[in-house]
Amino acid sequence: MGRVTSRRRVVRLVDGVADARADTLTVEEPLEIRVAGKPLSVTMRTPGDDFDLAAGFLVSEGVVRSAEHITTIRYCAGATENGANTFNVLDVGLAAGVPPPDPSIERNFYMTSSCGLCGKASLDAVRTSVTWPVADDPLTIDTDTLATLPNELRAAQRVFDRTGGLHAAGLFNAEGRLLCLREDVGRHNAVDKAVGWAMKNHSLPLTSTVLMVSGRASFELVQKAAMAGIPMLAAVSAPSSLAVDLAAELGMTLVGFLRGTSMNVYTGRHRLLDRPR
Amino acid sequence: MGRVTSRRRVVRLVDGVADARADTLTVEEPLEIRVAGKPLSVTMRTPGDDFDLAAGFLVSEGVVRSAEHITTIRYCAGATENGANTFNVLDVGLAAGVPPPDPSIERNFYMTSSCGLCGKASLDAVRTSVTWPVADDPLTIDTDTLATLPNELRAAQRVFDRTGGLHAAGLFNAEGRLLCLREDVGRHNAVDKAVGWAMKNHSLPLTSTVLMVSGRASFELVQKAAMAGIPMLAAVSAPSSLAVDLAAELGMTLVGFLRGTSMNVYTGRHRLLDRPR
Repeated sequence: MGRVTSRRRVVRLVDGVADARADTLTVEEPLEIRVAGKPLSVTMRTPGDDFDLAAGFLVSEGVVRSAEHITTIRYCAGATENGANTFNVLDVGLAAGVPPPDPSIERNFYMTSSCGLCGKASLDAVRTSVTWPVADDPLTIDTDTLATLPNELRAAQRVFDRTGGLHAAGLFNAEGRLLCLREDVGRHNAVDKAVGWAMKNHSLPLTSTVLMVSGRASFELVQKAAMAGIPMLAAVSAPSSLAVDLAAELGMTLVGFLRGTSMNVYTGRHRLLDRPR
Repeated sequence: MGRVTSRRRVVRLVDGVADARADTLTVEEPLEIRVAGKPLSVTMRTPGDDFDLAAGFLVSEGVVRSAEHITTIRYCAGATENGANTFNVLDVGLAAGVPPPDPSIERNFYMTSSCGLCGKASLDAVRTSVTWPVADDPLTIDTDTLATLPNELRAAQRVFDRTGGLHAAGLFNAEGRLLCLREDVGRHNAVDKAVGWAMKNHSLPLTSTVLMVSGRASFELVQKAAMAGIPMLAAVSAPSSLAVDLAAELGMTLVGFLRGTSMNVYTGRHRLLDRPR
């Protein structure tokens, strides 16, 4: 975990008064994910939990659904000219019978050959890819418990994040207990790491759990939650229009602006139990 | 510009008390950028200034350097089965003699064939792609002026952003005057839109300007600034390690945590003039 943060010299200016000091920064490094030796994607990520990141990414893309679908994950040696291992290239081996991903996987997710590129097509593409529908997930959580999640997330994150530059994704159960926290310079990576952790622990689908994220809720994050079978996504900040539309389409509960004891419920209100008054 | 925001029904809960209302959300829709009819990339973006987004993206990727390199940008009609225009697919025509992009352009940016995938390789790839080196740019700006930029950005953004969900990128001159503000659900898109605006106005390279962003400073944002010839990047939040390393490698000034009268100067301190005391 030594590569998660890095020290750099910085000049801090306050009211024009300069003060040279060392600053702790979030590390950002490229990661190439290969499947059976074939390059699939390159993402800028914070090193750490790389195997989980790769596994979760493949769950998000619909390539694998359980730990049994992956035989090996290893860092590629000899990834540089002099044969040194950069720990930035991963190769994932798939079990017999698991079809390797289409190289155009990313584009395929957002468009189909017959219909044009639009929000509706993006929703359809995810809906037809989902392995575990979440619409009938029986999860309920009371709003008092839900209101504790941002603080739980921040408290757990504070241990790791001394940089102000890390996004967090936390998996919680219906009692508000934190099951897994992952951090990354990219918020989609933080979610992939948490989903990959769950796959490794044979916990997919993540029925009756809540995914809480430190930032905004985008289409992509709703998609990732759906591919892992998560019935509720809660975010500290705003969702986008397409995030709300996708959550509605899938029957997922989407909560935004979860701060203190207030929250906006965009979809799936039936999963929130108000306290009796 | 009607598609920048969208209304959705939301249940607002405060201390367990529910209140149904309409909420304004940032629109997120996919955009496919084609060059000479060939699909190049799909990005999730906020509609508006799409032509600028496409042009700026191609500048960032090193495909074009001036308005003369592009002959046409148009929305593709017939992008759906029934021939309707989704306004989510753009085709860019290149002038004679401008080589079309390599389809593997994104991956190429982060790795070269002979050396492995690592931070150093990513820095080298950008350094060798830069058209207008910024190291010798004579820009200086006094810290009092720089400290006004976040408020200028927020004031201009407030006009457009009623959602809490839009990232902003602003181009400023050395006197702190806002030249261009662009917003998007994705911060890299906001920067591409601003750079595309500059290209359309024959203002590339953006010598002696400051790019101010509402969020964090990533490797990708430093890269985009560099490709447009911008000598200074200022961010409200934290930079990543690789953002600082790339700015140092290129001789760009990188300022982070620019809030009130305080700021962290990570690289290129010589461009900041302290007020006399």
